[in-house]
Amino acid sequence: MSNEQKYQEILVNDAKKVEAYLQEHVDRMYKSAPRQIVEAMEYSLMAGGKRIRPVMMLEAAKACGLDDESKISTFACALEMIHSSSLIHDDLPAMDNDDLRRGKPTNHKVFGEAMAILAGDALLNHASQITMEYVCEHCEEGFAKAAREIAFQTGIDGMIGGQTIDVLAEKTGLDIATVEMLTKIHSMKTCALLMAAVACGAYVAGKDEATVEKWRKYGLYLGLAFQIIDDILDVVGDEAVLGKPVGSDSDNQKATFITVLGLEGATAEARRYTEMAKNAAKELENADFFVWLAEYLCERSM
Amino acid sequence: MSNEQKYQEILVNDAKKVEAYLQEHVDRMYKSAPRQIVEAMEYSLMAGGKRIRPVMMLEAAKACGLDDESKISTFACALEMIHSSSLIHDDLPAMDNDDLRRGKPTNHKVFGEAMAILAGDALLNHASQITMEYVCEHCEEGFAKAAREIAFQTGIDGMIGGQTIDVLAEKTGLDIATVEMLTKIHSMKTCALLMAAVACGAYVAGKDEATVEKWRKYGLYLGLAFQIIDDILDVVGDEAVLGKPVGSDSDNQKATFITVLGLEGATAEARRYTEMAKNAAKELENADFFVWLAEYLCERSM
Repeated sequence: MSNEQKYQEILVNDAKKVEAYLQEHVDRMYKSAPRQIVEAMEYSLMAGGKRIRPVMMLEAAKACGLDDESKISTFACALEMIHSSSLIHDDLPAMDNDDLRRGKPTNHKVFGEAMAILAGDALLNHASQITMEYVCEHCEEGFAKAAREIAFQTGIDGMIGGQTIDVLAEKTGLDIATVEMLTKIHSMKTCALLMAAVACGAYVAGKDEATVEKWRKYGLYLGLAFQIIDDILDVVGDEAVLGKPVGSDSDNQKATFITVLGLEGATAEARRYTEMAKNAAKELENADFFVWLAEYLCERSM
Repeated sequence: MSNEQKYQEILVNDAKKVEAYLQEHVDRMYKSAPRQIVEAMEYSLMAGGKRIRPVMMLEAAKACGLDDESKISTFACALEMIHSSSLIHDDLPAMDNDDLRRGKPTNHKVFGEAMAILAGDALLNHASQITMEYVCEHCEEGFAKAAREIAFQTGIDGMIGGQTIDVLAEKTGLDIATVEMLTKIHSMKTCALLMAAVACGAYVAGKDEATVEKWRKYGLYLGLAFQIIDDILDVVGDEAVLGKPVGSDSDNQKATFITVLGLEGATAEARRYTEMAKNAAKELENADFFVWLAEYLCERSM
């Protein structure tokens, strides 16, 4: 088997494992909580997707020498619950007002706005609930640090903070957007959870702060490359391959890396961050998969 | 000084201490996070109120023998952040659509719906962030259990779960409401955070599960008495004293303990739970304040 095939298989197999771990959590929720809130949570949480954050967490932990996957699976599920929570709230009428997500009606279209707000809150909180349960049962330093990392990267200095600047930037309009501002927004909004993914893997495997920080760097560069490519695909992508309409950013008058750098400039910037991510991965042990992943995401057409 | 005066003073002084602890957290947020999200969080978090949950946590910890308040203040602040988060989201147009809260415009009226959704998310997440930071720095079993307690009581088996049933009950209308259903809703929606308050106090002071469970019982009975009295005051209260319009529940066609039990029946039910709360407190050590508190809340006119 070529390395390419091996890595592709890791992506597919890890995503399947994550689906199974998530389903276990959902099944446990149904045992005690009101059925209706669990249904709304399950609808969005189990709607598929690449599961790139939890997959990266599993692989980072493995690269850092963790051989017992049961020690990382709760953190991986928590991160995916937070990601899912943010998508539900982002899609709300008061935010992006989206009707479709991965080809399916968005949460509020199916369950109503009140339930969608509650389902987002519930997923965000459940992430902290399952990590705290795990930390209680296994009071190890690396686990507590992983839980703290997730909460930090989710919060006002991470994803939610970035989302705030994004909402405010949209209000003030396109014209004041700069590449520095977009980079700032996305290092919080997009990169924070990717940084949490690999940092948690390293923490749970018992790595020290210096090593964890190297992993975070990788997450940051990969996330920026990823976001710029997302912006590019919104302009030049193939609707059939992407599974969503292209041109939605410009329809929404949204500032993107394309509007501030042009197609050629944005492509060069994506390439630059991809190389930085690859170099960051090369400084880590056993991280060949992550070198490949950076290149793979840069070359993706979907 | 009479006991009455002493306990009244505890309520006032503890609330002041909580204000100061919360302000420290807000000041720290401004140092790194985007100013605008912190402003929206601060607006609701620092809008006053009785701070009954954190006050109960401080006093429960003291009753359980904790003499170093710095060990409990982070958890007290976290609980108040969660309470504040839930009020912001409850007031949203898709939920209760309230324009006023404690005499001030609600969060979304001032900052817009998008920011109010984010501010609620941010307060909910920040609660878990500060507790996780604390648990990381002081990896003790009681602290981890307190953090877990807060997340559990906030989530789908607690406050958010209760809020879900409440939203669904309002949709299906008054006619199917029963006293059992209202008790179920409020033991989750109203009581869960009160249970968390006293349980955290006991955990942080190092108490065992059996003792913590006795404290939770107190929180449950107190919360039910509190909610029933809230329903009663909505009908017979004095607007000037309450600081909010009376009759809003019946205007909203909302099922309450009054609509299902009548005024006399509801008053008897409030009395019953108050006695249960007092008896629960009498089974606890050093809990005279909590015996008084149950009676005080039952007799309150605001």
